[in-house]
Amino acid sequence: MVSQTRHDLAVDLGKWLQQRQWQIVTAESCTGGGIGYAISSIPGSSAWFAGGFITYTNTLKHELLNVPTVTLARYGAVSSETAAAMATGALANSGADVAIAVTGIAGPDGGTPDKPVGLVWFGLAWENHCITWHEVFEGSRTQVRKATIHAALRSFEKIT
Amino acid sequence: MVSQTRHDLAVDLGKWLQQRQWQIVTAESCTGGGIGYAISSIPGSSAWFAGGFITYTNTLKHELLNVPTVTLARYGAVSSETAAAMATGALANSGADVAIAVTGIAGPDGGTPDKPVGLVWFGLAWENHCITWHEVFEGSRTQVRKATIHAALRSFEKIT
Repeated sequence: MVSQTRHDLAVDLGKWLQQRQWQIVTAESCTGGGIGYAISSIPGSSAWFAGGFITYTNTLKHELLNVPTVTLARYGAVSSETAAAMATGALANSGADVAIAVTGIAGPDGGTPDKPVGLVWFGLAWENHCITWHEVFEGSRTQVRKATIHAALRSFEKIT
Repeated sequence: MVSQTRHDLAVDLGKWLQQRQWQIVTAESCTGGGIGYAISSIPGSSAWFAGGFITYTNTLKHELLNVPTVTLARYGAVSSETAAAMATGALANSGADVAIAVTGIAGPDGGTPDKPVGLVWFGLAWENHCITWHEVFEGSRTQVRKATIHAALRSFEKIT
């Protein structure tokens, strides 16, 4: 599975969504739109891709996705709590069936001992469910962002 | 200029925005997030990139960007009127200083004699200004999307 290309992963995600007749929405911080760009690379993806929110600043995380300012202040933008709020906010504000959210530190700056460069929190919301998980990816800013996109495209495997 | 890479164009856009102390917001249909992905590829881009709206469906164009349903019905999603409404809606709903909107037919399907595959309408809104223009790009879905991203990254040249 690791050897799958981004295109292959986007195709698989599209098939999975079509089987359920679901539409997906994205909520992206560190990837800046790259997940949506990958999903929409597949012809006909308008059948399963509603769209997304690129909330690069905390202001837009709050204004577009209803992430509480207290959550951002207490846990930080890169946290399980913010990823969950981004996913549930994107689901609520789009009318889609499933939402994938990512927020992380792509680098090269912005890392701390607690939250190193490469740390990415994912949130996945559907129906009345929301799960979060995190990864710490190695490499350059470009590599961290690409690895985040790959992982996001595969996140549907967590819905059983 | 044509030989500039996407990375170079994103760097130049960032410099231009920083000189003005402006933040940009994107409103993307056919590129699905690719413009935001390019802008945010530059380290430190949070200084000039607020975020964006990926409005792949007409529903989200209306709900997230206030594009009137009558505009979508009368002129279509790929039109000067929709591009203008997307740009002004993104500006109003984000608090950014300038908004770039793109809506087009990336193909391979969806073209008509009036609106062929490769047709892309651009909207650029700042302060109380809004301009639109269109291009017809040649090539595959991937090529049309990449050409659209390139043109969007250069759109600040239209603000004098």
